[in-house]
Amino acid sequence: MDNLGTTLATLRSTAPLVQCITNFVAMNVSANVLLAVGASPAMVHAREEVAEFAGLAQALCVNIGTLDPAWAEAMEMAVQVMIASGRPWVLDPVGVGATQFRRDVCARLMALRPTVIRGNASEILALAGMGGAGRGADSADPVTAAEASAQDLALRTGAVVAVSGPVDYVTDGVQAFRVANGDALMPRVTALGCSLNGAIAAFAVGQPALPATVAALAYYGLAGERAAGAAGPGSFQVAFLDALYSLTPQEVTAGAKVSRA
Amino acid sequence: MDNLGTTLATLRSTAPLVQCITNFVAMNVSANVLLAVGASPAMVHAREEVAEFAGLAQALCVNIGTLDPAWAEAMEMAVQVMIASGRPWVLDPVGVGATQFRRDVCARLMALRPTVIRGNASEILALAGMGGAGRGADSADPVTAAEASAQDLALRTGAVVAVSGPVDYVTDGVQAFRVANGDALMPRVTALGCSLNGAIAAFAVGQPALPATVAALAYYGLAGERAAGAAGPGSFQVAFLDALYSLTPQEVTAGAKVSRA
Amino acid sequence: MDNLGTTLATLRSTAPLVQCITNFVAMNVSANVLLAVGASPAMVHAREEVAEFAGLAQALCVNIGTLDPAWAEAMEMAVQVMIASGRPWVLDPVGVGATQFRRDVCARLMALRPTVIRGNASEILALAGMGGAGRGADSADPVTAAEASAQDLALRTGAVVAVSGPVDYVTDGVQAFRVANGDALMPRVTALGCSLNGAIAAFAVGQPALPATVAALAYYGLAGERAAGAAGPGSFQVAFLDALYSLTPQEVTAGAKVSRA
Repeated sequence: MDNLGTTLATLRSTAPLVQCITNFVAMNVSANVLLAVGASPAMVHAREEVAEFAGLAQALCVNIGTLDPAWAEAMEMAVQVMIASGRPWVLDPVGVGATQFRRDVCARLMALRPTVIRGNASEILALAGMGGAGRGADSADPVTAAEASAQDLALRTGAVVAVSGPVDYVTDGVQAFRVANGDALMPRVTALGCSLNGAIAAFAVGQPALPATVAALAYYGLAGERAAGAAGPGSFQVAFLDALYSLTPQEVTAGAKVSRA
Repeated sequence: MDNLGTTLATLRSTAPLVQCITNFVAMNVSANVLLAVGASPAMVHAREEVAEFAGLAQALCVNIGTLDPAWAEAMEMAVQVMIASGRPWVLDPVGVGATQFRRDVCARLMALRPTVIRGNASEILALAGMGGAGRGADSADPVTAAEASAQDLALRTGAVVAVSGPVDYVTDGVQAFRVANGDALMPRVTALGCSLNGAIAAFAVGQPALPATVAALAYYGLAGERAAGAAGPGSFQVAFLDALYSLTPQEVTAGAKVSRA
Repeated sequence: MDNLGTTLATLRSTAPLVQCITNFVAMNVSANVLLAVGASPAMVHAREEVAEFAGLAQALCVNIGTLDPAWAEAMEMAVQVMIASGRPWVLDPVGVGATQFRRDVCARLMALRPTVIRGNASEILALAGMGGAGRGADSADPVTAAEASAQDLALRTGAVVAVSGPVDYVTDGVQAFRVANGDALMPRVTALGCSLNGAIAAFAVGQPALPATVAALAYYGLAGERAAGAAGPGSFQVAFLDALYSLTPQEVTAGAKVSRA
């Protein structure tokens, strides 16, 4: 994939409204990430308004991190609106392997054919019904262990599936890519993964899901590389947001470490 | 308005307890802003305790950002307590133009006569029944387009109405002021607007609402000016909190850019 | 207590999964603190999954900051699982003196015999039924005023009780210690106290509660000392997370200011 930076340029010229139904840990970070990327975030979840609001949003990001039955219902209501209008929605199956409740909710959401699914290896393995050793938001499996599951999931659901890790793996079931951008401190800052899904949703507005997802991952990882050398996770998070904001399309094109898998 | 810094000095000597029923994105930022300003924040929303707690609070801040019917009920319960004791409460009508649910809740809240209403131009236009093109927390209208609506709202509700933007507009329906402090990065950090409403509530404790609101806006904007030059929104937010904490009353008086409208 | 740093070394080699049922203000900070400490955080609260998830967690942290009846139920469900398996759980009675609802929920939770209770002086006084002048998360009483109440609480509940302040007081009812590490800016950053309880839970995994609590307090205070000199609470919070991440066991042993009370 050449010239990935153009997807960022398109995003910034569109400034899409991205609705997030996400967890309490990630809400503030996700909103700041979307603003830094160049999108307009909105966190709206009440069943009384979630569908009406989805009618205004250009993309939707659904994250089951701090799940609850009322929120699960709201997620389905918002997704239905996106489907009906052909707009993208992204699923983040946080900790799906941990409880039956999460598996049930994810099964219902997967039936609604997400545009993109992104998780860590344990989550993608669990989602594909292959087990997965993850206990919470942290992965206990390497990315490579989840590649076959990712491909299977992509073919079954029609989604682009991304597995996050030191080297990310992205596939639509037919083609697959590896994205090697990133920094070792990224998993030590909470909610960066969750917030990435909002960024993917923003990239996918009016752009094909596979290159949009690859571009979002490369751009995100590049911001991590810019923040590298921070004294710890506190200053890393600050520098990471600054980098998301200041990275140019040209720098994304030049710095993306993407290869065909 | 001269000597606006004295309102900050009064706030800091009072260290008022400010109850916030605010959205999930803004909770942490609002608490940090109130601590930096010199107040004591408390986020309490359960219907089982919200009225009892309001009896302890010196001011209340209500924000509909991530609304839900139970929270809307709690807002009304807390507001009733503030009204009964003549203590100030501030309304932040986040994204009120987006859904019928938000319009309904805001209509009920406005009937309870907020001390101050602060929003962006799109929100104030929507609240005044004039439309408004905003979709979420971000404004799509210029401040000047909302001045007549702000005045109308102020006269109808008895509230001081503030319209945030590059140059803020504040009116009680009779007098009006413009506040030109601020920095272009402020809208790129989430929840700074929401958190401003908590600060306004703190300023309004024992002080007349119009100068208190003008002082809060000038002080907030000055902190933004101090944070200017940051590498991006991550370091801007850090420098902004530091500036709120370290600005002195004298600096507020000297730096406030307030003019009669 | 000598060689407190070894408890940090043990924590880091275990990297325990710590479940938090905590307030909306503290969720993000608590997760970041646990990651910086070397643990793996998980925020899970829905009654549909809270007990199943607690079966996976090595420790549990319960915080009543933004309480609600459904969450109170979930807290009890998760605690029951920890008790049944002999794993540690920590109670943070935020603002317990403020409302009857908080007192009732804390009474039910205390009957479930927390491993550790940590609060400020006003909270510990209120919990012990001695009054306490606190209104929210901020204490209005000095630590020394709560020492007798702390000892009484410890003997009645079997918990290690810690009173946070400029000099912390920790007791199991028989022995008592003072921890003099810390910095004056810590109370000006929201949720640092709440997040400390998650850290205590992580320290208490497989380690006796009294030295684990003392070590967590000394380590936390040392990180505050490292962050001292920050320009304000914004940069303090950043430096504090960096310090939690980079402090070594040797530095904790050398820097701990612990004395027998």
